Amino acid sequence: MVKKLTPMSEDFNQWYTDIIQEAQLADYSPVKGTMVIRPYGYALWEHIQSYLDNRFKETGHENAYFPLFIPKSFIQKEAEHVEGFSPELATVTHAGGKELEEPLIVRPTSETIINHMFAKWIKSHRDLPMLINQWANVVRWEMRTRLFLRTSEFLWQEGHTAHQTKDEATEEALQMLDIYEEFTQNVAAVKVVKGTKSEMEKFAGAKVTYSIEAMMLDKKALQAGTSHELGQNFSKAFEIQFSDENNELQHPYQTSWGVSTRLIGMIIMAHGDDKGLKLPPAIAPTQVVIVPIIPKNSDPEKILNTAHQLAKSLEGIRVKVDDREEVSPGFKFNEWELKGVPLRIEIGPKDIEKNSVIVARRDVDDSKTEVDIDTLPTEVPLLLETIQSGMLSKSQGFLEENTQHAEDMGDLIKKLSENDGFVSCYWAENKDDELKVKEQTKATIRCYPLDHTEEKLSVNQAEENGKFVIFSKSY
Amino acid sequence: MVKKLTPMSEDFNQWYTDIIQEAQLADYSPVKGTMVIRPYGYALWEHIQSYLDNRFKETGHENAYFPLFIPKSFIQKEAEHVEGFSPELATVTHAGGKELEEPLIVRPTSETIINHMFAKWIKSHRDLPMLINQWANVVRWEMRTRLFLRTSEFLWQEGHTAHQTKDEATEEALQMLDIYEEFTQNVAAVKVVKGTKSEMEKFAGAKVTYSIEAMMLDKKALQAGTSHELGQNFSKAFEIQFSDENNELQHPYQTSWGVSTRLIGMIIMAHGDDKGLKLPPAIAPTQVVIVPIIPKNSDPEKILNTAHQLAKSLEGIRVKVDDREEVSPGFKFNEWELKGVPLRIEIGPKDIEKNSVIVARRDVDDSKTEVDIDTLPTEVPLLLETIQSGMLSKSQGFLEENTQHAEDMGDLIKKLSENDGFVSCYWAENKDDELKVKEQTKATIRCYPLDHTEEKLSVNQAEENGKFVIFSKSY
Repeated sequence: MVKKLTPMSEDFNQWYTDIIQEAQLADYSPVKGTMVIRPYGYALWEHIQSYLDNRFKETGHENAYFPLFIPKSFIQKEAEHVEGFSPELATVTHAGGKELEEPLIVRPTSETIINHMFAKWIKSHRDLPMLINQWANVVRWEMRTRLFLRTSEFLWQEGHTAHQTKDEATEEALQMLDIYEEFTQNVAAVKVVKGTKSEMEKFAGAKVTYSIEAMMLDKKALQAGTSHELGQNFSKAFEIQFSDENNELQHPYQTSWGVSTRLIGMIIMAHGDDKGLKLPPAIAPTQVVIVPIIPKNSDPEKILNTAHQLAKSLEGIRVKVDDREEVSPGFKFNEWELKGVPLRIEIGPKDIEKNSVIVARRDVDDSKTEVDIDTLPTEVPLLLETIQSGMLSKSQGFLEENTQHAEDMGDLIKKLSENDGFVSCYWAENKDDELKVKEQTKATIRCYPLDHTEEKLSVNQAEENGKFVIFSKSY
Repeated sequence: MVKKLTPMSEDFNQWYTDIIQEAQLADYSPVKGTMVIRPYGYALWEHIQSYLDNRFKETGHENAYFPLFIPKSFIQKEAEHVEGFSPELATVTHAGGKELEEPLIVRPTSETIINHMFAKWIKSHRDLPMLINQWANVVRWEMRTRLFLRTSEFLWQEGHTAHQTKDEATEEALQMLDIYEEFTQNVAAVKVVKGTKSEMEKFAGAKVTYSIEAMMLDKKALQAGTSHELGQNFSKAFEIQFSDENNELQHPYQTSWGVSTRLIGMIIMAHGDDKGLKLPPAIAPTQVVIVPIIPKNSDPEKILNTAHQLAKSLEGIRVKVDDREEVSPGFKFNEWELKGVPLRIEIGPKDIEKNSVIVARRDVDDSKTEVDIDTLPTEVPLLLETIQSGMLSKSQGFLEENTQHAEDMGDLIKKLSENDGFVSCYWAENKDDELKVKEQTKATIRCYPLDHTEEKLSVNQAEENGKFVIFSKSY
C-alpha cells in the first residue's frame, strides 16, 4: 500500500502531491481543478474549524448561512471587486429546465450578498457591531490548480462585520489576524509574519488587507490567512446606513476575513519529510499510535490486551491501537510515519516483561526511548507538548535562517534570484517598481510586517520613507 | 420590534412565515427560492449538527467532502436517478470566462460523484464497510418554495456507505433511521412514525426508502429524514467492485441517508403557538433568560448583580441575562416568548428581599412559580428536563389524537377528505390506487410503519395481503 514518496529534495511539488495521495488526505475529482477531501484530510479541517469557531464565538461572532448563488448584478456593484473576480467566476445559466432571466454567479466570496442583507438588517447604531461568520464552499475558476492550495472549489470561513467607526473596524481586522496567527503558531506550529499587503496584492475592494505569511520547506511563502478593512466601499455600494446617536444616517465601516482548506497544504509543506507528514499534536487526528509486536511463539492475547489497556490509560489523548493482523509491524511503522502521527508506542513480550514500552517521536529522526509503563500517562502528554513546541521552534528557526536583508535594489534582485526564501528591505510603496521586481525574480511583496514601524531610505525610491517589507516567491 | 404574529388558527402558513421572520430565524434572499439562515436559526442547525455528528462518529462513520459540481454524464448513469432529479437541476455552463465543454450540475445529492470515487477506493473486502458522511449544501430548483421546508438550496448531511452483504446494508440503513428517530424524539421532542416508503414516494435510485414522519400542528405530515437501501444499483452503474475472501469480484451493497435544515421547519411547526416558537431545551440556543425588573427608586446595580450571579450559578445551562436598558420587561417577555426560550426567570427588588425569583415556563400557558434562589441550580435542570419530556409527550399525544383508522376505501377517502391528520389502513402496494387516493384527497402514503408486520384484508385490493400504512397530506 505505502508507495515510495518522491524525495523532497528531488522534486518538492511531486513530494507534496505524493504525500496527499499516499496519506489519503485528498484525491483528484473527475471535474477539472476540484478535489475530494478524504476522511484523514477532512479530520484536519475539522480540528481547524473547531479551534477557530470557538475563538470566533468567544470574540462575539455568530455563524449564519448565505446563498451559494449571487445575482450577476450584485458582483458588479463594487468596481474593484468585479474587476478582481470576473476572470474566475462560474455561472449558472439554466435551472429547473429553463434558461434563467439573470445568470447566477456561484459565490467566489460573499461580500456582495451579505452586504445586501446587512442593508436590510442594519438600521440603528444599536444594531452595530454586526459580527457574522460563515463556513462555506466557494468557487474560483483557476487555470493552474494544486490540491489544497488552489482548487476551483474550496472550503473556508468568511467573517463579515460592520462597525460604527473606522477605529473599531481596524481593531476588528487586527483582532481576527491575531486569532489566525494564534492558530497557525499554537496549533499548526507554523511561524508566520503578520503584515499589511501592498496595493498590488490586496483584496479586490479592500482599503487595507492584512495577512499572515508562512515559509514552506522549499522556502517559498504561503499566504495563510487574510483580514481586510473594507472601509465604506461596500456599505456605500450596497447602501447600508444606520442612524447614529444624533439620529443622523451614517455608512458603517466594515471588515471581512478568511482562512481556507489551504491551511492543510501549509501544514504539509511546513513540517513534512521524505517519510511523509509530520503533524503537530494539537491538530493530529491520531496523536499516539500503539503498535503491538507479536513474535511467533508469543501470546498475542496478552500483548493485545496490554496494548488496549495502555490506550485506555491515556485519557484525553487521541490514541489508536493498530491491531491489524494482515500487515507487519514494519509496514505499520511506515504507514503511521507517512500519516504523520506524532508518537508511536511499540509493545512486545520483552517490553511487557520489563514493564516498559518503546516510544518513537515522529518530529525528530531516530528517537526511540524506553519508557516505564506506569509513567506513560504523565509522560505522553509531556512528550506531545515537547513535540508541539519543538515543531514551532523549528519552523521559526527555518524562517529566520532563510530570511536575508537587502541594502539596495541590485542586492534585492540578486538575493531573490539566487535563492528562494524571504528577502527584507526598505521599500517605498510603488506598483511599477514592484512589478519590475516580479518580472525579474517572480517574487512579490508578501507584506509590510506590522512589528516594524520605522522608516528608512528605500531601495527603490531613494527617499527616507521606505517601510520594512518582505519579498518572496509564493504559492 | 416584535410585530403581532398571524394567529395559527387563522392562517397556519402565514403564522409559520411570520415566526421565521420575527424570531429572525431566516430571511428571504434576493435569489428566488433561496434563503438566508440568520444566526438564531443557524444556532439550531449547529445543535442538530453537533448531536448527529457525534452519533455518526460513534457508529464508525467518517466525514469527507466531495465536489459541488458533478459532470452531467454522471447524473445520467443511474436511470431512475436521472429521471427523478432532472427537472430540479441547476447547470453551470460557463466558467473562467469560457463555455464549458461539458456542463456541470450543481449537486442535488452526491450519490453519483461519491460512487465514482468509491470505485477508485474500494478494491478488497478489507476496504469494506466504507462509511462516509458529508455536511454540505445542495441545490434542487423548486417551483414552490417555503423557508426551511423547500428551498432551492439547502444544507444537509448525506451519508454514503458500501457493504459486503445485503444484510449489512439493511442493518446500516435501519441503524441510521434509528439515529434520526433518536434525534427527533429525544432532542427535538417530536414524535415520529418510522416506516418504509411506497414505490411512488421512494428515492430515485433506491431499492427501499425508509423515513421518519412527523405530524405538524396543522395535522399535516412532514418527512423529517430518509435512509435508503440502494442495493447494487449504483455500484453496478459506477462499476464499484471488491474482491471477496475467495478472490472473486463482487459489487457492494450500498446505503445513503440524510436530514436537512428542514428539521428546523419541523421544530417550528411541531411546537409553536400564537406567541411564537417553543424550543425544546435540548436544542434551544438559550435555555434560560433572566429578566431583571428594575422599578423606579430601586437599586439597579444590586438587581443586575444578583441577575448575573444567578446566571453564573446555573452551570452547564445556556443562560442569558437580558440587561438592555432601552426596552421594558414586558417587551422582553414578548421577545423571548417569540424566540421560544424554555424558561424565563424574573428578578426584582421584592424577589431579592424574599430570596426568591419568579420562574415562567414557555411550554405551558400561565405557568409562573416562585422558586427559592438557593434551590435554583438544582431546580432549573429538573425543570428543563420536565419541559423536554413534556413537549415529547404532547407531540405524541397530538399524533395519536389525530390518527384515525379506515376500514375500507370509502372510509379512507372520507376521512382523508374531511379532516387533516393521519389515516391508517391496510393497503396492498399499488401505484395506480395510490394515485387515485392522491387525486381525490391530496394525501399520499407517508410510510408503512415498521412496527406493524401483520397482513390483513387491504382496502384497495380485497386480498389478505394488505400491509398497515399511513396516509396523510404532507409538506
